Amino acid sequence: MVFKEIIRKKRDGLKLSDGEIRFSVDGFVRGDIPDYQMAAFLMAVFFRGMDGEEMLSMTDAMLKSGEVVKVDVEGNIVDKHSTGGVGDKVSLVLAPLLSQMGFKAPLLAGRALGFTGGTIDKLESTGMRVELSSEEISEVVRRFGFSISAQTERIAPADRKIYALRDATSTVESIPLIVSSILSKKLAINTGAIVFDVKVGSGAFMKGMEDARELARGLVDVSRLYGKQSSALITTMDQPLGRSAGNSIEVVEALNALSGDISNDLLEVVTSLAGLICETSEAASFDEGKVEAENILLSGAAVSRFTSWIEYLGGSPNPEISKRRVYVESRRSGYISSIDGERLGYLIIEMGGGRRKVGERIDHSVGLRFFKKVGDYVEKGEPIGEVIYSGGEPERFVEEFLRSYTFSDEKVDKLKIVLERV
Amino acid sequence: MVFKEIIRKKRDGLKLSDGEIRFSVDGFVRGDIPDYQMAAFLMAVFFRGMDGEEMLSMTDAMLKSGEVVKVDVEGNIVDKHSTGGVGDKVSLVLAPLLSQMGFKAPLLAGRALGFTGGTIDKLESTGMRVELSSEEISEVVRRFGFSISAQTERIAPADRKIYALRDATSTVESIPLIVSSILSKKLAINTGAIVFDVKVGSGAFMKGMEDARELARGLVDVSRLYGKQSSALITTMDQPLGRSAGNSIEVVEALNALSGDISNDLLEVVTSLAGLICETSEAASFDEGKVEAENILLSGAAVSRFTSWIEYLGGSPNPEISKRRVYVESRRSGYISSIDGERLGYLIIEMGGGRRKVGERIDHSVGLRFFKKVGDYVEKGEPIGEVIYSGGEPERFVEEFLRSYTFSDEKVDKLKIVLERV
Repeated sequence: MVFKEIIRKKRDGLKLSDGEIRFSVDGFVRGDIPDYQMAAFLMAVFFRGMDGEEMLSMTDAMLKSGEVVKVDVEGNIVDKHSTGGVGDKVSLVLAPLLSQMGFKAPLLAGRALGFTGGTIDKLESTGMRVELSSEEISEVVRRFGFSISAQTERIAPADRKIYALRDATSTVESIPLIVSSILSKKLAINTGAIVFDVKVGSGAFMKGMEDARELARGLVDVSRLYGKQSSALITTMDQPLGRSAGNSIEVVEALNALSGDISNDLLEVVTSLAGLICETSEAASFDEGKVEAENILLSGAAVSRFTSWIEYLGGSPNPEISKRRVYVESRRSGYISSIDGERLGYLIIEMGGGRRKVGERIDHSVGLRFFKKVGDYVEKGEPIGEVIYSGGEPERFVEEFLRSYTFSDEKVDKLKIVLERV
Repeated sequence: MVFKEIIRKKRDGLKLSDGEIRFSVDGFVRGDIPDYQMAAFLMAVFFRGMDGEEMLSMTDAMLKSGEVVKVDVEGNIVDKHSTGGVGDKVSLVLAPLLSQMGFKAPLLAGRALGFTGGTIDKLESTGMRVELSSEEISEVVRRFGFSISAQTERIAPADRKIYALRDATSTVESIPLIVSSILSKKLAINTGAIVFDVKVGSGAFMKGMEDARELARGLVDVSRLYGKQSSALITTMDQPLGRSAGNSIEVVEALNALSGDISNDLLEVVTSLAGLICETSEAASFDEGKVEAENILLSGAAVSRFTSWIEYLGGSPNPEISKRRVYVESRRSGYISSIDGERLGYLIIEMGGGRRKVGERIDHSVGLRFFKKVGDYVEKGEPIGEVIYSGGEPERFVEEFLRSYTFSDEKVDKLKIVLERV
């Protein structure tokens, strides 16, 4: 096979064979195919797309470039993946909850990049170990019914190499490339059913419903072609999720949520995903699962699993949060009409709580709190949130926080949290 | 400026500014922009195209990456460029003809790459010098009224670097990239009017009329934006042009043509281009020019310019042609319905008369002769052509020659030679 002919085929809108896609990925990982040819290929995929079978081949080739996590436990092993958003601490709440519901939930998660937070960074704020071997994951799941650990460098190295090239060549925003990137890591573990939480809105990578639907369908279709039961929810990111965004502070919010003190939007997302997992894995109906999940959360029955799990891996469930705080007071009265999550995400990065590039150190102690959401009425001078900082100019942070909000004199509807099932 | 944002802009179908395009070309030539980013950019251009102003910026940036040829002569300086085809010896006939008509014609020409021949290779078969400085070109034009010399490495190095990348990334077939590649070299000389001979058909790079029209319009539009009078003809390459294809043999054919012994198709192309040059440079009407050109050719008045020019530069106007020859006899009776020029071009390469890659040595003495064209009736056993070889398997060459022809029992129309004016 000659790679430039494969580029041409994709360029001309023809379907690539499984062999051609594997040749491309393998050749690139080995270094036989140079960056510049792969860059042209990726741009051709951006324009021409890939069908389900092509995405499956791409996913599997990338997955096979690395090692696979083999979880050795009995039971109904399930998995969940979120496409990421501002304030998205769902995994921290959902994994212990699923365990309480009788599932085994060995989640692999990533670090922050871009304006959204990373589950692994949040957990590292506790001081716990996050890089576990297959044997350790199995042991943790046997003990706690769940595990959240880092996707190591050994999983899907092809994805890292391709992602770096996409980032440099403006080919990140391609649904088939996003699908294969996500699934090459998510399918590298032997779980049963998998559900996806596809975030859409200002605080997510997918800004529009059409893109979100296409991504959700791609994730579900390719997972099914791969032989996994799978479904997805599309949930809103037109405001930050829950009451806070940051690292330590989101761990504390998760702890409170598992104790029964949980915001409505987070409750809705977590319990809907739990219901969907029940339905997808054929353990119960969606509604039965959702109700059971809500009962467990509000009773606080799952919180001790969470705290003892963190402690078992050497962390503290109450990580330090900076004491330097300033309230953000509204400059006008009115209904909150929009909250720009991406802007708030970049504010957290500016405060040191996220990364500008791979490998940067994070200040886990900073973050933001949100007291009001879209549709809420606020009086002039009323605090709508809080900035938790450790250095820099708090006045600037407050200004930036306020600039992320718009207000209206007219009544504004609250946001629908779960938008669609796919 | 950040190049990946320029890639994104083109990817999303937005128009690039002059500054953005110059930044891209200059950065790539200097090595600040890596191959992989330029490859993604080129693929985005493949899909999104470029308008006239963008092509002008691209052309000018590439042109300015190298040196410019300054011809220091008086008179009506004109130029002609062909997009290349099998048997295309038009420049060899047209340049002395234009000189005889009173024009100054300092042509820059290229070497063969792909399945079409190169004017410079043909001239090198005579042993003459083909790499001339600006001063030498001026001197030659003052003496003979025309010059044909090589585009040196110093002209538009950006084009060479970009072309190599396009070749490796399947982005050769992009009209704006072809236009800027051609014009970055053609406009690097201070001629007045320029006419283009855009070849279309099986023996040309443009296989379809739509592409040929788009290319012709791009070449003419950008040349005019650059400030040159310009027009184009679209001429057929659905059969080889003239009576032969190769190197030495085409020089001899050109010599015969200038002596009045010229095939109808070559006569039609050469005189039409001469007419168009008269019209475009406002020296005379198209028809006046065409008639004058035909009279000169058939009278043989221009041939001594050609021979004395070759001798002046150290060559022999009668280069050696291999004595090893075999006729190609038709295996059936019928009308010739098609001739695959690309296939014949690759046959010449296989016989050693062309290049598989840049820098390969060429055997100037081999080639093909064509006795019959599309629409001609041939009897079984009648010679339709001749293979002139120096080694290898002549039986194979004859087979390949025959496979390039199709026949029909029904009468087939002769091909129209000049298809359109742009």
